[in-house]
Amino acid sequence: MRPHHDGSELYVSDPAPALGDTVTVFVRVPRGTGVSRVHLRWVRDGEPVFTSAKVDHVHHNDTWWRAELQACNPVTRYRFLLGTTSGVRWLTAYGVTNHDVPDSTDFRLVAQPPAPAWTRDAVIYQIFPDRYARSAAAELRETPDWAIRADSWDEPVVPGPDAVRVLHGGDLDGIARRLDHVTALGANTIYLTPFFPARSNHRYDASGFDRVDPLLGGDRGLERLAAAARERGVRLIGDLTTNHTGDAHPWFASRPDFYYPGVFWLGVPSLPKLNWASAGLREEFRAIVRRWRAEPYGLAGWRIDVANMTARHGGDDWNHEVAALLREAVGDGLLIAEHGHDATDDLDRDGWHGTMNYAGFLRPVWSWLRAETALSDSLGNPEELPVRDAGALVATMSAFAAQMSWRSWEASWSLLGSHDTARIRTVVGDAERQHVAAGLLFTLPGTPMVFAGDELGLTGGGNESARQPMPWDRRNIWDNKTLGRYRDLISLRKSLPALTRGGLRWVHADGDVLSFLRESASQSVLVLASRGAAKAKLTGLPPGITLENLYGGAPPLHIESDGSTVIDISGPAVQVWVIP
Amino acid sequence: MRPHHDGSELYVSDPAPALGDTVTVFVRVPRGTGVSRVHLRWVRDGEPVFTSAKVDHVHHNDTWWRAELQACNPVTRYRFLLGTTSGVRWLTAYGVTNHDVPDSTDFRLVAQPPAPAWTRDAVIYQIFPDRYARSAAAELRETPDWAIRADSWDEPVVPGPDAVRVLHGGDLDGIARRLDHVTALGANTIYLTPFFPARSNHRYDASGFDRVDPLLGGDRGLERLAAAARERGVRLIGDLTTNHTGDAHPWFASRPDFYYPGVFWLGVPSLPKLNWASAGLREEFRAIVRRWRAEPYGLAGWRIDVANMTARHGGDDWNHEVAALLREAVGDGLLIAEHGHDATDDLDRDGWHGTMNYAGFLRPVWSWLRAETALSDSLGNPEELPVRDAGALVATMSAFAAQMSWRSWEASWSLLGSHDTARIRTVVGDAERQHVAAGLLFTLPGTPMVFAGDELGLTGGGNESARQPMPWDRRNIWDNKTLGRYRDLISLRKSLPALTRGGLRWVHADGDVLSFLRESASQSVLVLASRGAAKAKLTGLPPGITLENLYGGAPPLHIESDGSTVIDISGPAVQVWVIP
Repeated sequence: MRPHHDGSELYVSDPAPALGDTVTVFVRVPRGTGVSRVHLRWVRDGEPVFTSAKVDHVHHNDTWWRAELQACNPVTRYRFLLGTTSGVRWLTAYGVTNHDVPDSTDFRLVAQPPAPAWTRDAVIYQIFPDRYARSAAAELRETPDWAIRADSWDEPVVPGPDAVRVLHGGDLDGIARRLDHVTALGANTIYLTPFFPARSNHRYDASGFDRVDPLLGGDRGLERLAAAARERGVRLIGDLTTNHTGDAHPWFASRPDFYYPGVFWLGVPSLPKLNWASAGLREEFRAIVRRWRAEPYGLAGWRIDVANMTARHGGDDWNHEVAALLREAVGDGLLIAEHGHDATDDLDRDGWHGTMNYAGFLRPVWSWLRAETALSDSLGNPEELPVRDAGALVATMSAFAAQMSWRSWEASWSLLGSHDTARIRTVVGDAERQHVAAGLLFTLPGTPMVFAGDELGLTGGGNESARQPMPWDRRNIWDNKTLGRYRDLISLRKSLPALTRGGLRWVHADGDVLSFLRESASQSVLVLASRGAAKAKLTGLPPGITLENLYGGAPPLHIESDGSTVIDISGPAVQVWVIP
Repeated sequence: MRPHHDGSELYVSDPAPALGDTVTVFVRVPRGTGVSRVHLRWVRDGEPVFTSAKVDHVHHNDTWWRAELQACNPVTRYRFLLGTTSGVRWLTAYGVTNHDVPDSTDFRLVAQPPAPAWTRDAVIYQIFPDRYARSAAAELRETPDWAIRADSWDEPVVPGPDAVRVLHGGDLDGIARRLDHVTALGANTIYLTPFFPARSNHRYDASGFDRVDPLLGGDRGLERLAAAARERGVRLIGDLTTNHTGDAHPWFASRPDFYYPGVFWLGVPSLPKLNWASAGLREEFRAIVRRWRAEPYGLAGWRIDVANMTARHGGDDWNHEVAALLREAVGDGLLIAEHGHDATDDLDRDGWHGTMNYAGFLRPVWSWLRAETALSDSLGNPEELPVRDAGALVATMSAFAAQMSWRSWEASWSLLGSHDTARIRTVVGDAERQHVAAGLLFTLPGTPMVFAGDELGLTGGGNESARQPMPWDRRNIWDNKTLGRYRDLISLRKSLPALTRGGLRWVHADGDVLSFLRESASQSVLVLASRGAAKAKLTGLPPGITLENLYGGAPPLHIESDGSTVIDISGPAVQVWVIP
């Protein structure tokens, strides 16, 4: 193991300080790394300051060094300089380097208010309302002019230009009726894709933000769902499109100053782009965010659609201002930015609490676990989804995580798929590899988000075909083994503070196998994930102890006196052991 | 060689487009790299767009691919996706990677107005006025109350608390008298450290920005220097402190709103920190920048002192706003930010054209070439200056360069030392290694800056002792060999467009030897630098040709039919060959 620090509670006395607070940070230096001096470098008002760290204590093989810094700026960047027997090294969030590196991977102490406390324990369940469940009332509603009514709930979705017009007719009361499924899974937060009226089944073309689509049950339907969810301790998160509206939105006719004339989201003429130069538009969105946050709806926060493009056009870029405006309006609620490629430059400000972590989670997991059958890449990439080994997974995750604060990583949503992607089951090809993917989802840092239906092993090779209705009445197609694994993994996550509060140290990443430690003050667990049969030698573990298995069914794991252990794996697997 | 792109004219049809312009970019793919498809990914309004590149032409061993993108935003980031026989790769400014990387190292097409055209051919000569040269009038001036007059011009500087009070009495007319030295060296731009009145010999504690220090000859002295310089085609650049003033500045008494009460630069009580919340302060600085840019002074631009801390304090950060304000005021002049650790996040905006590249040039060169005698690190680092190999030099330079646009790199000042550091001669220990350092200074991208006296081989182990007066009358201590080498290298640089316009491809970096190509449309040169005796095998060069030596005295270099050549080096060396 190499010298280590991360932004978790084990290494930072207060990960959410107020501006001006002094915070103690710790570096863990394993024996044999040759480190005899540790300095903290932090940047105060734009200038580096060096402080010598002192040995705090020695525990087993690790020397813990301690230094103090002040949360002097909204984001205070810091790193460590290690004096070793073979020269100095930098320790930044990307790891240990033997040459100078820019500040972009410095650790970040953020003095902005943190994401709401509940997000740490949140397990998000994403519901696409038209496809989740239908109430009795839903079946009686008239079909609007833009829609094509599906013949039956279970009519398969056929991708194509008309797919967005096909209405299966799921509604909010339908969701309320199925909350037991959500809570039995262990999810405690529902993220609803848009519930505003629109002219498509996805509703990202809102024709108003002031009311719930009557097709979904209207405002009263949301009120009923909110009440039923609250009764079960389940939070609701809404989905707000701030980049554009539908062309049927009354603003589009009445408020030309709210739009860029002739500009549309990716050129789609039904989705005119909003112009945030307008103070009136800003006022409207402040009110919208607040209205649905308030009772009787009480949304716990918002996922912001196309956050990456919001308020960006040509020479204009008010994205960070808009994020701050929405953050202020959301109060103590959660604000998550959709971003498909690299949100890091938009985080750790006074706006988004986190992102949907496609770049730093979904893509590396997909690339490691993908099936051999040809598969197009997500998110517009023209090449096939790459096949990469465990080393590339770690390199990618680390590269993205290194450019955000630890708490932004924790608040960001880890996901294996969404309404915008293929289904994880189709990407990885079988239940065993899906299990490995889910194992990573629930044991790595980040707030896990499950796209409804993944837990049943549903398939689909693209976003449209991944939006099949939930097969409530076709129990024969449920993959109950996968459902059980999701339940068990969520339950495991909830029972282990190390998985929700712990730091992360990579132990091994080589081809088919990766392994890491999640460690909090009270608990350490070792996680191993494998995509196939393999034999792996793990090193750097606490010597001479035996680890009890908590998940996966492996026998207790004995660590040799040199800190190593050899694991023989017979196929795709997830194993979790606790370190005594 | 690996597939390559950089921001130079060889690879970008217009490195300084207007917003909305379409630009053609090229990727050079050497044979044997297995690349059969090239896609351009560029980010438009926050969303990636992919475009397929097409083969433009094949030249020798290289296939040149071509794609177009629009300078759609003030900074348009782009990268390439390479389809190879062994999977896809990203090509960003940090190189080729086999895993996903964040956007921070994407290439950048910048649609802000570029640095003035003359900066490309500039060779900067830094003068610390008190120590450069004295006019006859200077010798007659009264010693102000704060100062201690040196007994003679050649009295050695003794570091210590009083060192900043010792006045050697150099002045602007003294500089004017020595312009022939500057032009004989080949420098065409003088950067003057502050000429405003102050209470120290360095004058970073300005007591006014509205007049030139009478000790330096006053406004008329600057006017005379400007006229003499202009006559010789030499530009003048001033030095402006925007972070603080001296406590003797009248603002400090009359305008408390211009300052943070009780806040000083690094706690030094004579240097109260300016508060840029004040609109009045902003107005003052606009006027200051303009006044000295105008005739009869006609400064060509400003170096901004402590730019890294300017307008940053606690929760306040108007740094980018202030940079934009100064940039607007400087008009078509140059604006360079002092920044000691990592300026990249402050560049490529509408403010600073470039930085003093301590982090991305001075430190890696120092670490590669430093002498064996113990040497404290620059810039407050508590450890000794590291000893690193050529691989670390390339890694560091690449890491910093990858986070700025090519043109910001070109406009930034490469330097081997300044009034704030030890002398390069002392850092590297001898004339031969200084020669290697100078070789890199004048052949790598970046605008070379020479701290006056380096060309004579002056020594000094810290900033104070590096500020010895120029030994005009002690010709016996001039290192004429070094002076000749500086002249020759500057002359070489001026004669080779590849060194001022060319792209950069690293050929070799291993321990004691590094080698690179600078290539423009009309010319390619191969540079080799070595810090000691070594044998190096270079590969990837055009096969079967013979290269004529342009600098360094090596024989013509024959490249084998496999593109390789072996070079035997007897000691520290700089060699430059032209590729026919």
